[in-house]
Amino acid sequence: MKNFMVPRYAALEAYVPGEQPRDKQYVKLNTNESPFPPAPGVISAVNGEELEKLRLYSDPEGKDLRDAIAAQFGYSRENVLLGNGSDEILAFAFFAFCAGEKVLFPDITYGFYPVYAELVGAEAEIIPLCEDFSIDINKYMGNRGMVVIANPNAPTGMALPLADIEKIVAANPDNVVLVDEAYVDFGGESAVGLVKKYENLIVARTFSKSRSLAGARLGFGIASEGLIADMNKIKYSFNPYNVNRLTLLAGKASIEDTEYFEKNVRAIIDAREYTVAELEKRGFDVLPSSANFVFAKKDGKSGEELYLGLRERGVLVRHFTKERIKDYLRITIGTKEQMGVLLAKLDEII
Amino acid sequence: MKNFMVPRYAALEAYVPGEQPRDKQYVKLNTNESPFPPAPGVISAVNGEELEKLRLYSDPEGKDLRDAIAAQFGYSRENVLLGNGSDEILAFAFFAFCAGEKVLFPDITYGFYPVYAELVGAEAEIIPLCEDFSIDINKYMGNRGMVVIANPNAPTGMALPLADIEKIVAANPDNVVLVDEAYVDFGGESAVGLVKKYENLIVARTFSKSRSLAGARLGFGIASEGLIADMNKIKYSFNPYNVNRLTLLAGKASIEDTEYFEKNVRAIIDAREYTVAELEKRGFDVLPSSANFVFAKKDGKSGEELYLGLRERGVLVRHFTKERIKDYLRITIGTKEQMGVLLAKLDEII
Repeated sequence: MKNFMVPRYAALEAYVPGEQPRDKQYVKLNTNESPFPPAPGVISAVNGEELEKLRLYSDPEGKDLRDAIAAQFGYSRENVLLGNGSDEILAFAFFAFCAGEKVLFPDITYGFYPVYAELVGAEAEIIPLCEDFSIDINKYMGNRGMVVIANPNAPTGMALPLADIEKIVAANPDNVVLVDEAYVDFGGESAVGLVKKYENLIVARTFSKSRSLAGARLGFGIASEGLIADMNKIKYSFNPYNVNRLTLLAGKASIEDTEYFEKNVRAIIDAREYTVAELEKRGFDVLPSSANFVFAKKDGKSGEELYLGLRERGVLVRHFTKERIKDYLRITIGTKEQMGVLLAKLDEII
Repeated sequence: MKNFMVPRYAALEAYVPGEQPRDKQYVKLNTNESPFPPAPGVISAVNGEELEKLRLYSDPEGKDLRDAIAAQFGYSRENVLLGNGSDEILAFAFFAFCAGEKVLFPDITYGFYPVYAELVGAEAEIIPLCEDFSIDINKYMGNRGMVVIANPNAPTGMALPLADIEKIVAANPDNVVLVDEAYVDFGGESAVGLVKKYENLIVARTFSKSRSLAGARLGFGIASEGLIADMNKIKYSFNPYNVNRLTLLAGKASIEDTEYFEKNVRAIIDAREYTVAELEKRGFDVLPSSANFVFAKKDGKSGEELYLGLRERGVLVRHFTKERIKDYLRITIGTKEQMGVLLAKLDEII
């Protein structure tokens, strides 16, 4: 078979999403989805009349949804960019602000950042987390390239205080700082308010976690008008109709139901507190989590052993083979009942 | 306002989608959508139970839909790639097979090709169509870079015979030939069968036109396993969950209803024949169309004048400002009733 791929992508190593086995029904705690259905308004918004309209293209500007998001956060439509998941927001930012140049991010973080760096041909300066898995903000102060920080970080779940994020943004006036807040609703402090003050800040958010819409694929970025216009240039050069009609409707119905959203977030936080306490009772080290997952290990048991033992017993969690974190499990917080199953299966293993 | 965009994209000129004005209800014949709703099965496939499952990610491999498409065309799942619209299939192909290298396409064709070339940093060799707007296949024989041919071409609607496509594919054994068949169902000859014979051929298809799912965003590519694997590498480095859950369901329901599909295609072809005859009666030059649109001009009337006159009267068609085609209108074929309105409004103008 002849090789047609361009040489610059010969070494590209793609992202590997969490497994989706179909051999049996699992308690699925491996991809940080919500255990709760989307807001009731989502179900009624996607109705037969709207399905008939699928013959028409979606609004490439996504005006209604951008207006709803802007209103929620106190910004204008021009400060909001919609993505086919927040992954696409990240991709657009990498293209616009570091293609062929430089980008900085931690060694332990969302595994997609090094992939995007490679895709856009950016040199990646990978900065190790401290021994305790915290981010040393002083290492991001050099104005050396685009800075990408997940806050809370993944897969650790650990959050930086807003004041630290602001220090990084303020110390990089010539570069874009991209703060990936996929998990912020579960206990982090959002940097969205800083967008008014700093023209170099992008906050990326998703509907996949706290809004139970992972399968609808919807994310957004909030930033200064200039940065949004730049990312829009990439979007309109890649896929102008990037968000489909039904997802636009679902997103709007979701963002308008604050009560349902808050109730679900509280339930996840409660289940997380319970899970952390129970894991610690069983001798696990659990990193302090501000996310809808916990990152935990148990001395004397390898991460692989725990992961495989759980999988065999019908519970899926995420395990990474990277040396520094290979003994940890990333466990999504589901309902309290699901966490009870996880704990019971762990008791069988240990 | 400071400029943060990387220099390589400073000159990027994004694609401009057809307008979507909201000031009044238009007879919308400007973006080649179908006038018919999606197949009835689509409406029942996207039900409440599936909406509840939006909390879960979509299958990144899209196995069920790829199997359904593969079965339809006599291929395997490994020969099928799904995209968030066929635009994304085109984008993945440009990244994988001509980034930083060379690509060839006609001067008058889908306006997105030069944008993709710029996005991926490919040198574009732009080859003028013949005087009669046909493609001279001898100009694509040089094995000089990736070749992109829309068949039928847009906005002309003119199709190449399959034998000519095969000549191009056979004459470019070291390069990928990308045949964009967005409009093929309305009268073109598909090159899908050639994929069995040529490992350098990609056929891109869409659900947006003949399958009435423009707003669901779904396209696919059919190619050798090797080319699909290469494009998958780009997909998994850009957005692994690129097609949402509801669109996967809608696509499967649509592809399984051949009868509905064929009925709609026949209705569009009938309305096109009628429209062409009526336009010719009125002194228009109409290029021979194998698509769900016609490209037409009338001596003595500028394209802009006709476009604006129609717009004012509530009929939207597409007008391009490029010198060579500035006196033409691209008119989407809707229902016979819609085409009657178009003709009546043209009568008022001329």
